[in-house]
Order: sequence, then C-alpha cells, then structure tokens
Amino acid sequence: MEFVARQSMNACPFVRSTSTHHLKKLAANSSLAATASHCPVVGPALQQQRYYSQPSKPAQAQTSDIATGIKKDVSPIRMDSNETAFDYNGMYESDLANKRKDNSYRYFNNINRLAKEFPKAHRQTEDDKVTVWCSNDYLGMGRHPEIIKTMKATMDKYGSGAGGTRNIAGHNHAAINLESELACLNKKEAALVFSSCFIANDAIISLLGQKIKNLVIFSDQSNHASMILGVRNSKAKKHIFKHNNLKDLESQLAQYPKSTPKLIAFESVYSMCGSVAPIEKICDLAKRYGALTFLDEVHAVGMYGPHGQGVAEHLDFDLHLQSGIASPSVVDKRTILDRVDMITGTCGKSFGTVGGYVAGSANLIDWLRSYAPGFIFTTTLPPAIMAGTATSVRIVRADIEARIKQQLNTRYVKDSFENLGIPVIPNPSHIVPVLVGNAADAKKASDMLMNKHRIYVQAINYPTVPVGEERLRITPTPGHGKEICDQLISAVDDVFTELNLPRINKWQSQGGHCGVGDANYVPEPNLWTQDQLSLTNQDLHSNVHNPVIEQIETSSGVRL
Amino acid sequence: MEFVARQSMNACPFVRSTSTHHLKKLAANSSLAATASHCPVVGPALQQQRYYSQPSKPAQAQTSDIATGIKKDVSPIRMDSNETAFDYNGMYESDLANKRKDNSYRYFNNINRLAKEFPKAHRQTEDDKVTVWCSNDYLGMGRHPEIIKTMKATMDKYGSGAGGTRNIAGHNHAAINLESELACLNKKEAALVFSSCFIANDAIISLLGQKIKNLVIFSDQSNHASMILGVRNSKAKKHIFKHNNLKDLESQLAQYPKSTPKLIAFESVYSMCGSVAPIEKICDLAKRYGALTFLDEVHAVGMYGPHGQGVAEHLDFDLHLQSGIASPSVVDKRTILDRVDMITGTCGKSFGTVGGYVAGSANLIDWLRSYAPGFIFTTTLPPAIMAGTATSVRIVRADIEARIKQQLNTRYVKDSFENLGIPVIPNPSHIVPVLVGNAADAKKASDMLMNKHRIYVQAINYPTVPVGEERLRITPTPGHGKEICDQLISAVDDVFTELNLPRINKWQSQGGHCGVGDANYVPEPNLWTQDQLSLTNQDLHSNVHNPVIEQIETSSGVRL
Repeated sequence: MEFVARQSMNACPFVRSTSTHHLKKLAANSSLAATASHCPVVGPALQQQRYYSQPSKPAQAQTSDIATGIKKDVSPIRMDSNETAFDYNGMYESDLANKRKDNSYRYFNNINRLAKEFPKAHRQTEDDKVTVWCSNDYLGMGRHPEIIKTMKATMDKYGSGAGGTRNIAGHNHAAINLESELACLNKKEAALVFSSCFIANDAIISLLGQKIKNLVIFSDQSNHASMILGVRNSKAKKHIFKHNNLKDLESQLAQYPKSTPKLIAFESVYSMCGSVAPIEKICDLAKRYGALTFLDEVHAVGMYGPHGQGVAEHLDFDLHLQSGIASPSVVDKRTILDRVDMITGTCGKSFGTVGGYVAGSANLIDWLRSYAPGFIFTTTLPPAIMAGTATSVRIVRADIEARIKQQLNTRYVKDSFENLGIPVIPNPSHIVPVLVGNAADAKKASDMLMNKHRIYVQAINYPTVPVGEERLRITPTPGHGKEICDQLISAVDDVFTELNLPRINKWQSQGGHCGVGDANYVPEPNLWTQDQLSLTNQDLHSNVHNPVIEQIETSSGVRL
Repeated sequence: MEFVARQSMNACPFVRSTSTHHLKKLAANSSLAATASHCPVVGPALQQQRYYSQPSKPAQAQTSDIATGIKKDVSPIRMDSNETAFDYNGMYESDLANKRKDNSYRYFNNINRLAKEFPKAHRQTEDDKVTVWCSNDYLGMGRHPEIIKTMKATMDKYGSGAGGTRNIAGHNHAAINLESELACLNKKEAALVFSSCFIANDAIISLLGQKIKNLVIFSDQSNHASMILGVRNSKAKKHIFKHNNLKDLESQLAQYPKSTPKLIAFESVYSMCGSVAPIEKICDLAKRYGALTFLDEVHAVGMYGPHGQGVAEHLDFDLHLQSGIASPSVVDKRTILDRVDMITGTCGKSFGTVGGYVAGSANLIDWLRSYAPGFIFTTTLPPAIMAGTATSVRIVRADIEARIKQQLNTRYVKDSFENLGIPVIPNPSHIVPVLVGNAADAKKASDMLMNKHRIYVQAINYPTVPVGEERLRITPTPGHGKEICDQLISAVDDVFTELNLPRINKWQSQGGHCGVGDANYVPEPNLWTQDQLSLTNQDLHSNVHNPVIEQIETSSGVRL
C-alpha cells in the first residue's frame, strides 16, 4: 500500500518539492510524522498505510460472524476454499498504466477563468495567469454582469438549490420561464431542461429506442459520446452512416419499409473538426423514408441564426431575421427549424452556465417529461442557474453583433494561420482545429504554449479524435480581439518552428491530410455570408416583429 | 392540429379562466386574435395552427429536390409507394392518454421555496404561500447565508459557468477543493464530482459492467432508477435480490466461484419507505464471495454519522466521533466505511445545491475519471456551485445538532401520527411515509393539504411505489419546529377524516399492510440512539482531533 501513501502524499506541495533524502532526514530529526498525521491530505494516507501494514486476520475469522441464516450447504466447498477474489485494483492499475503508455491518460489543467479579466484565467496560484483559447464559453457569456446579477438575486430570494425533482418540490417558475425561453428560441411548442445535454441526448435517444417497437436508429459516425451512448443504451437496431454522407444514409434508410419507425440522429456543428451537417437534405430523407430527426445543436446554439438558435435557424436566415422571434409566415414550405423533430442544446457553452435541453412538439416534450428516467429522477438545476440561463438566452438572442464578432475573430485567426502555413482542418464554422498529427507532439505543443507563451490550448488526442489526427482545438470568442489573436498567432508560429511541426506544405507533399494540403479538397462556403456579417443589432431589432421582442424581453426572465 | 393550439393556449391564464363561449364572442367582436398573435405563448401556437391548416403539397414535390446522388434503383417501389410513415405523434398521444387513465400522469406543482421564509414557498403568485413538507433539502441548507455568500463571491470572481469539460478548460480549484472535501467526508482517498448522482450511478455501474469481463451484478430490488439504469446499461449478467434480504443475496452470490468478478449495488436509506440496508452484513458477504460493494448514500448523506457522511459512518458512530475527520485508528478491524468500495452521494439534497459524487480508492477514482463517458464528456458544474457545496459540506460536517434536531422533529411527527392512528410505514430513518393505499386518494389528500391547509406534500404514486402502496412522503427538517409540525399533524388528521382514509386500526383489521397494523412486524430500532441524540456540537468538536477540524475549516473551501 505504499503506492496509496505515495499517491496521496504527492498531493502535498511540500512533499512534492522536497527530495526523498531530505524528507527522510526531516522525519528522523523532527516531528514531521506527527505533524503529517494531522494534515487533512497526508493524514488519512498515513492512516491507511498504517492499517494496511497490519497483518490481516485469517479469512475464517472475518466471515465467522455472518449470520444470514442461509443454509450452510449452499456452497460449503467454495466458502472454505483458498480461491482468491478477482483483483479489481489490479485491473484499475493495469488499465491506467495502458492509458499512460498510449498517451491517452488525461492530465487536467487547473484553469480558473477570471470573470473580470476575460479571457484570462489563473492556474494554481493567483499570479500565474494564462490566456484561455479553448473554452466552450464561445461568447464569453460566463462573465456577463446581467447573468451574474440575475443569479445572485435569485439565490437571495430562492436559495442555492431546487431541493427536489421536478415532480417533488423542485418545479418552479425559474424552470417554467427557462423552458418557455428555449421553446421560443427554437420556435417549437415546448422545451424541457435536463441536468446536462449529455444526459438529455442519452435519455432521449435511449428512451425512443426502448419505447418505439422496432425503431431503427441511423447515427452519424462522428456523433458525440452522449449520442453514441444513447444509441447503445436504446438497444435498438442501429446503422452508423459515414460522417455527413447522405448517400450512405439513404442507402441504409432504403433498406426498410417507410412504415418502420426510424430515427436519424446527428449534430449541426461537429465540435472537434467544425464540419456542418446537411440538415435540410437529412430532413428531406427523413420525410421520404418516414424517419424522426434528432438534431444536436450543442456547438451551434448562440452562434448561428439571426437569433442564435443554431444552424437550423441560420439556413433560413432572412426568413427568421424578418419574422423576429415569431415563426415565419411561410405557407408554401416549412422552415428547416420546423422540419427537425427534436433539437437538443446546452446551457453550458454559449449561454455560459450549465444544463441541457430539448425542444420539440408539445406532445413529444410531454412524453419525454413523463417517461425519461434521466429527467424524472434527478434533482432540478438550482433556480439561480435556470434564471441566469434565461437571462443569457434573452441577451444572446438580441445580440447578433456578438455572433458576428466571434465569426470575424475566427476568420482573422484562420486567415493568419493560413498565411503562415499553419495547418487548420478546413470547415465552414467557428472551430479552429490546428492539425498536429500525433499525440506526443500535440501534448508538447500544448505544454509549450502554456509554459512559454502563457496561452492555454488543450491538446485533443485519441480517443476524442482518431490516431494521427491529433490537434490543438482553438475557440476564439468575441472578446478575443486583434491584439490577443496576434499573440496567439505568433505563439503558435513559434511552437510550430520550435517543435518542427508539419506545416501545410509538408502535408501537401504527402498528398494532404484531413483536408489540409489536399488538392482535391473542395472547401465549403462559410455558414455566415459576407452580407450577414455586415448586419447590426439595429437590423435585428428593426424587423416587423420588434414589438414582440420588446414584449418578451420585458415579460420573461425571472420575476423578482 | 387544434390539439396543439389548445395545448399551448392552455398555458395562458386568461384563456384558461374564460369560457369557450365568451372567448368566441370576444374573438368575433374585438382584436383578440390580433393581440394573441403577438403573445409569446399563444402567438407561436396560432402560427403553427395556421401552418398546419394549409393543404400539404404532394409527397413527390417534397422529395423531388433530394440530390444525394444515390442510385434510384435502391428501392424505387417504396419511394413512390403510398405507404405511410409510423405515427410518432399518435404514439406520444396514446401513451400520455394511458398515463392519465391509470393516474400516473404527473402534474408538476409550481413551488418557489423562499430562502428567507423557510420552510415556506410561494406558488404561481407571490402572495400564494404554502409550507413545504416534502423537499429533499433535508437540512434546509439551501437557504444558508454562508453558502449563498460563497456562491456569490465565486461568481463575481469566476463567472457563472465552468466553460468546458474537466479535460478542456473546465477543471479548476473549486472542483479540486470539493472533491477533496468529499473524499475527506467519506474517509476515502479520492472523490469525483458528476453533474448529478443520477448520472454518477448510471455511469459507474454501467462502466464496471462493460469493462470488467464476466462481471455479475447483484442489485437490491428497491434500488433507485439511476442504479437500475446503470445495471441495464452495463449489459452485464444481473441478479435482483429481495429488498434488504441477505439470505436471498447470499444464495445468488454462492452460485459463482469466488474468482468471478461481482458487484453488489445497494442504498443505505431507501427514500420512499425509509428502510435501511444491513451494510455491515453485505460487506461480510462481499468479502466472503469476492464482490465489490457499491453503496448509494444519497438519502443519508448529511443526516447520519457524527460528521454526516451517511449510514456507513453512523454504524461505527463512537469510533468516528472520537477520531474526528481522520480515519479511526483501528488495528483489529476495518471500519464499515473502509469496507465499502465505493460510495455515491448527492449535493442536491442535504447539501442544498446540485451535483453528485463518488468516493473510493485513488485507483478506482482515477479509473472512473479516465473511462466514464458521463464524467468525461460533460460540462463541469459552475465553480460557484462547487464552492458553495464545499462550504455546505464543511458546515454540515461540523453541525451534529442539525442532524439531531432533524431526527427529533421526525420522531415528534411520527409519534403524533401514531397517537392519532395515522398510518406511517415503519422505518428506522428520517422518512415519514404516510400510507394511503390508492392513487386517487393520495392525489386527493395531497390536493386537500395544499388547497385547504396550504401544506405541500406530494402524493407518491405508481410507478415510484407499487400499486396499493401509494403514500404521502413527508420530510421534516431541523427548521420544521413544533408549531409547524402541529399544523401538519392536525391538517393530515383533518384530511384523513374528510376523505375517510384508512387509519391504523383499519389496516390492522385487514391483517396489516406495509408493516402498518401488522401484529407480526418487528420494528427495527432507530438509527440514532437516545445517547447519540443527546450530543452537542461541543461534543463533536472536543474530540482528540479537534485541531484537525479547525485546520480543515480554515484551510479548505474556496480561496478568494
């Protein structure tokens, strides 16, 4: 059990920074051991060590007090045998050793994002500051004074927690308001809030698979872990179609009669590469083959569409811009937003808080509310979180300039990298995936950015991305202006030089990789067009439905 | 689609309270329809209705723009056939209709718990106040000024959200501190925080089943939905043993060689009936048969043990009282806390915030941290929630008097009910399950308590409890003093009289039910003994390790 003690003692900054030799000397000549036993970190470890070093009692003695009344002839041989139990701890250790060996062991960086010094964070000590370049707080809403003000006022009035599930004492007007805001954002009849979008995706997909007899699920190959889990837990028949590949999807759909219930599960923006799903064409296929559509907008919400619903809204940009928060009056076709059956999203990225949601028809939402264990049997998010998120949704919806600024900063970074030959996996969205190509280098690059340049960009390695496609995933926000971008750009340039990482021409000479330096790669146009990027908040608010926006903005949110 | 419009319009208090006849008159003679189209709730519904009332285009036209490149000969007949798609909406409607029919449809009560008027809450309007008697904020910590103060200060400094997963920008000292507090509370080497204990239970049990080849899971029949889901999602071989039945458990364990990996999953306090697991004897069986033990302390944490770890601590009460927050110095046996391999719990009940956790050995926790998708791929809880919870853990740990007061209030309610012949399902814990025995009456009783007596107790019906065992589940807190208890007691007495609900003697005459009026039922002794109930905070703090408690209390928590 020395391992245990060593593990725990490693948590002590004093022990870590002192040589074993000096420690031994101290232990011999001072009251170090006695002091250590009082330390909240090291104390329990020493106690454990002391316990484990006691000779263990014979097994018979340990089991002699079992008085369960069970007849002793159930398995008399086994009980007295010397057979040993499965070595659980050995398995943990061996799995962890393997993770270290294949570079997939995760070392968490202690990053304390400072609300008043955005986008800076401090590390372990307050004076050790770095610029955060990989947070998913895409719009920097996590430090918005209005959200924090709402949360504080709500806490003062309603306390720190909800105190129960939605069914037992945990349903309140903060939840009602937030769900109404989210339904409105998605132009759907209703919405439901979960603890996270991870649990929403898992709960919804698995429930559909369990409750709809013979459901066949068609899932994009690049779907998020939460959706993969939902598909797995549904125990339904499944097909994995090639990423964004309509031909593959259609050939799978066509294997079943139209009357067979089907679910197509996909995302709008895929977070690790920034690719965007052909939502409209997937809806066409869904209609043709009688399938439900499940769209995860987690990495798009807040960032696309005139009001920040996501990519589904963005694809009918002008219609939604004109109709404001009401559904557009289209009589000859349904909007793409209308055509998607259920849309999930998160409150933990662009909205700057935590939680997940699904929006859809009133019946669907009532059905999920009534059957999904992951919704029913869990404590409601605190009223302050719900109220703060509702405030955030309203602010984000009304601020198209934040979305535009985010896109412009992204383009500045992408263009500058391209000029320097730094390889960015091409995509039409706001994600800047800088290709490195192997795990060790990606980690080294991330470490050098942190330690030499005080810039935090997490390395993304296997299993989050395939082996050989390791990258630095950079996420600019509206708050990452030119000066901050220039620091990043020159730092990444320096790291590429220092570590001799392959630039675009290197990948080109190898025939291209992940779309980088690939002569045959046809880039997709950016989701945000030049015209859209020239809009202002004035344009957003001066549409025909302006009075409605005003009404919503004064009537919703928490009523204090 | 009239249904849709009606559903949405039902959300409007004006529409709800006005007769259809009067509405039609208004619509004909006023600008009601125009005004409604601007309403954020009714507007979208009208829009939908308008859309759906348009004649739909022929299917061919809808699909003609599919340009997926798939060869048209895949299934030409099907695509042009008149076969209809599965009726998803019809299924939602029919399932919901069934729920209404069998009384399992849930109507959420809008309960806004007021931090400054504990245990009161307001309903939809602020002047409509009720006393909450069924929250799981068991110690009333949700309104504790110190927790709220910590949360506000943390938000001011670190914003409203974590901005990422633990691996990408979402790991911070609030998380590190909380996990260290929880490890310490459970006297384990390490702990890990999840979005909720629901996801913790599901993620851990399912992961163990997936990763440990040939694992057999033994799960108590009354386990929580989250554990049932974990067992199901693990796809491992499982045995469900009769509730708290050691004989049944042992007969199942004995079917396998000791070397077969096994997991026994159980709770300490079962929330709907208040029964308590024989933890020590289950650990004995686990040792004998080589099984891991998984203990859910969700409904016990904060309430049992001298420091509020839960029932596992309570069972070695004196040892832990003496050793303070350090592990007891026992050389001849391990404490029960030591013997349980992993303990899960919640921050959303006795700690008054939200989130879940698991505590265990350093290797186990590192392994879960490295492999559980429900931990890895989800946004970290906001630093303010983590910091507030750490403050709560410290306060709860040091306040044995709150635990005692909660127990005394519980006993006062139970004893008073017994004197009035009101049937309480007997148990040794803090839950007061008042037996009603059918769904309609339980709902009626809950409604009458709310509307006539302004007391909120949720009716607990099938599927949360078996049919015929419907109940009112009452949860006293330290803040529910004598006066408030007396109001409850006389209100429940009145409701039993008014609705003519069966009292103890009625159940007695039928031979007893759920232990009520059952001549053969042997009551278990309460977990808290008379001696333990006479302790004070002074006793807790004056033990040998007092300096350590002081040290922890000043050194941990968020550093601002």
